[in-house]
Amino acid sequence: MNRERALEAAAPFITPLAVVDEEVMEGNLARMAAVAAGHRVALRPHAKTHKSAEVARRQMAHGAVGLTAATLVEAEVFAEAGIADLLVAHPPVGTAKLRRLEALAGRVKRLAVSLDDVGVAESIPPAVEVLWEVDTGLHRIGTAPGAQTVAAVRRLVAAISAARFRGLITHAGHAYASTDQAQRRQAAEEESAGLTDTAEMLRAEGIEVRERSVGSTPTAGLALHPGITEMRPGTYVYGDANQVTLGSQRLEDCALAVVATVVSNPAADRAVIDAGSKALSADLRVSGLDGYGIVVGNERLCVARLSEEHAVVTGPGRTGLAIGDRIAIIPAHACTTVNLHPSLLIVPREGTPRWQAVDARGWR
Amino acid sequence: MNRERALEAAAPFITPLAVVDEEVMEGNLARMAAVAAGHRVALRPHAKTHKSAEVARRQMAHGAVGLTAATLVEAEVFAEAGIADLLVAHPPVGTAKLRRLEALAGRVKRLAVSLDDVGVAESIPPAVEVLWEVDTGLHRIGTAPGAQTVAAVRRLVAAISAARFRGLITHAGHAYASTDQAQRRQAAEEESAGLTDTAEMLRAEGIEVRERSVGSTPTAGLALHPGITEMRPGTYVYGDANQVTLGSQRLEDCALAVVATVVSNPAADRAVIDAGSKALSADLRVSGLDGYGIVVGNERLCVARLSEEHAVVTGPGRTGLAIGDRIAIIPAHACTTVNLHPSLLIVPREGTPRWQAVDARGWR
Repeated sequence: MNRERALEAAAPFITPLAVVDEEVMEGNLARMAAVAAGHRVALRPHAKTHKSAEVARRQMAHGAVGLTAATLVEAEVFAEAGIADLLVAHPPVGTAKLRRLEALAGRVKRLAVSLDDVGVAESIPPAVEVLWEVDTGLHRIGTAPGAQTVAAVRRLVAAISAARFRGLITHAGHAYASTDQAQRRQAAEEESAGLTDTAEMLRAEGIEVRERSVGSTPTAGLALHPGITEMRPGTYVYGDANQVTLGSQRLEDCALAVVATVVSNPAADRAVIDAGSKALSADLRVSGLDGYGIVVGNERLCVARLSEEHAVVTGPGRTGLAIGDRIAIIPAHACTTVNLHPSLLIVPREGTPRWQAVDARGWR
Repeated sequence: MNRERALEAAAPFITPLAVVDEEVMEGNLARMAAVAAGHRVALRPHAKTHKSAEVARRQMAHGAVGLTAATLVEAEVFAEAGIADLLVAHPPVGTAKLRRLEALAGRVKRLAVSLDDVGVAESIPPAVEVLWEVDTGLHRIGTAPGAQTVAAVRRLVAAISAARFRGLITHAGHAYASTDQAQRRQAAEEESAGLTDTAEMLRAEGIEVRERSVGSTPTAGLALHPGITEMRPGTYVYGDANQVTLGSQRLEDCALAVVATVVSNPAADRAVIDAGSKALSADLRVSGLDGYGIVVGNERLCVARLSEEHAVVTGPGRTGLAIGDRIAIIPAHACTTVNLHPSLLIVPREGTPRWQAVDARGWR
């Protein structure tokens, strides 16, 4: 994040606003594409981070095989943007969603969903392939690696045919609970081994697992076992303070910041800015991250408290901030911060900044 | 919240979606109007909760004198909706905001801002009145009650004239840190007494304090001292699980819920739904609230963990939930939850539900 360039681009506008350093973002896209190519796995970025048709097209230009979406609205927006190969990584349940899914299947070349229930799989339109979700440690959705998954996939294949079973999928979200590099690597190991070991067991039973899909930014490229076919990191495109704290992304590779203005200076050690929990998300903060973000170029400051449209910024002894000063904050969690903004100000290395819509917010 | 009516109205739509029980909301509007009338204070609701032109008009129909806004976009949307008396309760800093503020002043009958710096006050357009912010315990913006505020207002009046000084304002946001009713009442006492005592000191110096404006939903009507002229509660319109936990609103007076569908059932004591931190805000949870909301009609369930588009719902021993079931969740914090939704489904007592836009999201 080039602080000077970001603040200059933001100068004509009221704050808070979210800015993206285009050069840094492009570096992230290229770097993750190289990681995937180096491991000979396909890259299917999770687009929930950016919810942007423009960023989706850039990821495809960098060699992604297709995109991952979390919601039908995201998938519909990306289909509209010309992305022909989509995975909706969320079980579609209920007639309203299934109708939308069927319509979507008619508009793209290749569509899959991930799920963990044979009954849900049986309700999926025939044109849609299925990835079975394995729980490699997050304990959210999925069956345990090994025998439990083997038994479930056996039932799945009997219900929907081997042709529609694309493979196994997992997300090592528990990597976000890591407090050191050994734990992060451990989560990556569990993610890869959970899929490849189970896939071998299925192959021994005569069930082919064409896809073994893993993915998160903290585990990306950390422990890609032979046999893994696809990775689905999302946050890497913008990076955030959580990734920096986890050690999975460098501070200089954070491309997204929220620019805010100091509006009050009630004490030497406390300044108040005009960005709160409606501009900087408050949901996910990893162990070791102090406050709600990192102030670019002034890491001794702490975004200590969020109200809805105010944040209290503290400093050791004094903040050094004056009313009217602007600061750029790398948010704790990029994905939910982007979701708060109707559009982001894209700041190119040279030339004129431009607004980019966060196209795929909401669910309707 | 009439659970059956809400779920029936939501049935044709994909989840997550946010629903409002119109009858319950109307009850909240009438009840708060009666509290204000009973104490003979003006009601100037904080519209950041709903960000809706339609709800703004209803509040005016219930006798509100005008509205409070947190952002210029909110104030602009409400001006467009015909609200003629607006308070922007946030210091407007920077030329871009001041330009917008000046344009806004030309479109309404009466406009004020709150702030805590004489330099900021001097930059405000002449048509805009000023309320001075007193810090009665939140320790965000403002000067301490008593001598510190008296000295500051003396400087303010010298700078912008007594005519443009409308009065004192405070927000007892520290009421949200209460762990019992005594603490909540204490916050309300501090809020009222901080303003009225300081106003008397100013009057003794010959400075008239026309407005003494307090407000939060947890302190509303709890300790309105004689001399208080105006109250600015916001959350009461919809209510939320924080208010229920604080004891400042009854569960049956919560008008807003997020409807979600069970999409996975990986363990007897764990179900996964399709509403996460992009549908249910994760920012403010008061002491004593277990999880991210209250499941209407099934309070033994806990919305224990939020991912972006998933939540893990747990129950003691077993959840009793099956894939396809829908649940309605009273969110922890209504204001930031509403801000996540492009529109809300308004469910009337009789007749057809309709969508209501959350008009005033964002800042541009």
